Amino acid sequence: MCFCGGGHMAHGEVQDAIVERVVARVQEGMGLIVLHSGHHSKVFKRLMGTTCNLHWREAGEKERLWVVEPSHPIAEGLGEYFELPHTEMYGERFDIPTPEHLIFVSWFKGGEVFRSGCTWQRGHGRIFYFRPGHETFPIYYDPNVLRVIVNGIHWAAPRLFGAHLCPNSPPLEPLAG
Amino acid sequence: MCFCGGGHMAHGEVQDAIVERVVARVQEGMGLIVLHSGHHSKVFKRLMGTTCNLHWREAGEKERLWVVEPSHPIAEGLGEYFELPHTEMYGERFDIPTPEHLIFVSWFKGGEVFRSGCTWQRGHGRIFYFRPGHETFPIYYDPNVLRVIVNGIHWAAPRLFGAHLCPNSPPLEPLAG
Amino acid sequence: MCFCGGGHMAHGEVQDAIVERVVARVQEGMGLIVLHSGHHSKVFKRLMGTTCNLHWREAGEKERLWVVEPSHPIAEGLGEYFELPHTEMYGERFDIPTPEHLIFVSWFKGGEVFRSGCTWQRGHGRIFYFRPGHETFPIYYDPNVLRVIVNGIHWAAPRLFGAHLCPNSPPLEPLAG
Amino acid sequence: MCFCGGGHMAHGEVQDAIVERVVARVQEGMGLIVLHSGHHSKVFKRLMGTTCNLHWREAGEKERLWVVEPSHPIAEGLGEYFELPHTEMYGERFDIPTPEHLIFVSWFKGGEVFRSGCTWQRGHGRIFYFRPGHETFPIYYDPNVLRVIVNGIHWAAPRLFGAHLCPNSPPLEPLAG
Repeated sequence: MCFCGGGHMAHGEVQDAIVERVVARVQEGMGLIVLHSGHHSKVFKRLMGTTCNLHWREAGEKERLWVVEPSHPIAEGLGEYFELPHTEMYGERFDIPTPEHLIFVSWFKGGEVFRSGCTWQRGHGRIFYFRPGHETFPIYYDPNVLRVIVNGIHWAAPRLFGAHLCPNSPPLEPLAG
Repeated sequence: MCFCGGGHMAHGEVQDAIVERVVARVQEGMGLIVLHSGHHSKVFKRLMGTTCNLHWREAGEKERLWVVEPSHPIAEGLGEYFELPHTEMYGERFDIPTPEHLIFVSWFKGGEVFRSGCTWQRGHGRIFYFRPGHETFPIYYDPNVLRVIVNGIHWAAPRLFGAHLCPNSPPLEPLAG
Repeated sequence: MCFCGGGHMAHGEVQDAIVERVVARVQEGMGLIVLHSGHHSKVFKRLMGTTCNLHWREAGEKERLWVVEPSHPIAEGLGEYFELPHTEMYGERFDIPTPEHLIFVSWFKGGEVFRSGCTWQRGHGRIFYFRPGHETFPIYYDPNVLRVIVNGIHWAAPRLFGAHLCPNSPPLEPLAG
Repeated sequence: MCFCGGGHMAHGEVQDAIVERVVARVQEGMGLIVLHSGHHSKVFKRLMGTTCNLHWREAGEKERLWVVEPSHPIAEGLGEYFELPHTEMYGERFDIPTPEHLIFVSWFKGGEVFRSGCTWQRGHGRIFYFRPGHETFPIYYDPNVLRVIVNGIHWAAPRLFGAHLCPNSPPLEPLAG
């Protein structure tokens, strides 16, 4: 399992050779949980194929995360929504490929919305992006946030590990006739 | 509009800086048509986030492409299927993200199947992968193949051009209260 | 082209035989635009296979529709968002199959969000659900709302008309050998 | 868990009131496994919103099922493909909504292909369609077929049970200001 998070500033310092090794490991089956500003990590952008840009604001406003796919394993144990009293805002448009599953949509006091819980698959690897997080707001002490992250880890756990080959394959059926 | 095709051998020679410029242009809205062995082009792999590996065989066998989404604009004017008498085989598993639209599935005489017509979107750009093609078989003289490529060009034509920004956004609603 | 809208109360009065004829016509290729409380029309529920239930409130509050897929033809000519000053609220969870394309997400003053512009395909027919509308608020005089509806009509226009058959098909290749 | 299978002839005899009860139970969370000619069951067509028509032939020919999503739980324990020596043919176009996950694609000796393993979700219920089966060929003794069905049962097991409500919801935020 691999986590991508951390502050905005350090993403550029991650060496490309390491990025390629992490990307290859995800493609082979490793789960990837991307939290908050990890949306701008080289690994996430590399796997998405998009800029992953978004609108943002740091004003400590209220966020309410609505559960739009309540039967998804990542939403297990949550109610219809949960709230975070003071968060950094991330708003649409979020430049991502259409998520395979959209689990959470956020409402922000200041007037924005955001696709806050999204999943994709790349190769054999499962990827979960989860919006909440911050370096000073105590987001990672919130029990609902912790529950989602734990659920996400279980969901993204590898089912299958293996390289993707490109073999020259002999025919399985006669070619003549 | 950009085409990615060409022989297997030359992909590695394309400079990464040029790849990144083409990728950025697709994200801003440029259509991309990827033909045959363009599945291994750096641009396509970079936009997919996967290895794009597959099984292959060069035996000049028969391929029949079935139209599984006949009302898609890319399938306009085709019948239920069309055939190519002598083709290189590409077989599953094709390591791609789940296509947004799967238009063609190929049957090969030697026993394989392949998702031969697939679309995705990255940023504002539309991407169409189409399997047929070869450097010696006369695939690009086939009227159905040409029809699909023309349809694909019309479908992938830009709707919107623009960079994806990451602005610090003032609130649209009062934050107090 | 067919529109499903109207008040909550009349849906039950639509005869099932007529519902089945409209559903069949959509499957054969007719576009369908479903507006506001048309989410509970028999035709829409029949095509979705879900209850299409949602949360609602009639308090004349502000709604802001964010464009999450700006390059989709249905969003042509719109800005990053548009607002409706007094609307009935529809909130998540909206019990629909995962939309093929999610174009608008609404923010409501009272704290909810909603997937307000969604598309699906059934057979050859394209379906667009668009949330805004009301029997007393002047929603259908709003220029952005009208623009979306016009865009939706162009998008849903039939590409192909035809029944879906279930033929007994002779083999295309020799079965022996 | 509910299975829809059985011969072609009996589907019309299932009473609509029973169909609606099964459909409602799936929407509330019950898993549904649809086998072979269950594609024409009223329950499946009702949940898909399409005709579910296809091409078919009863000639006892060879089928090879390719695994296109090997890390999906339903494909656990399988190889790259498996074969059935004598099967009824089902061929494209199969009139279904785009599957959320496409797990198997079949190759038939007679020249057709088919999306043989597909999943969807309706409400909280997971649906798996699996093509193989027949009233005289011994398909359900094949160990790979049995493995897929067992995997499918585990995958479709309910995560959440509950009705979808349509509540009038008081605002969560002050509407004035």
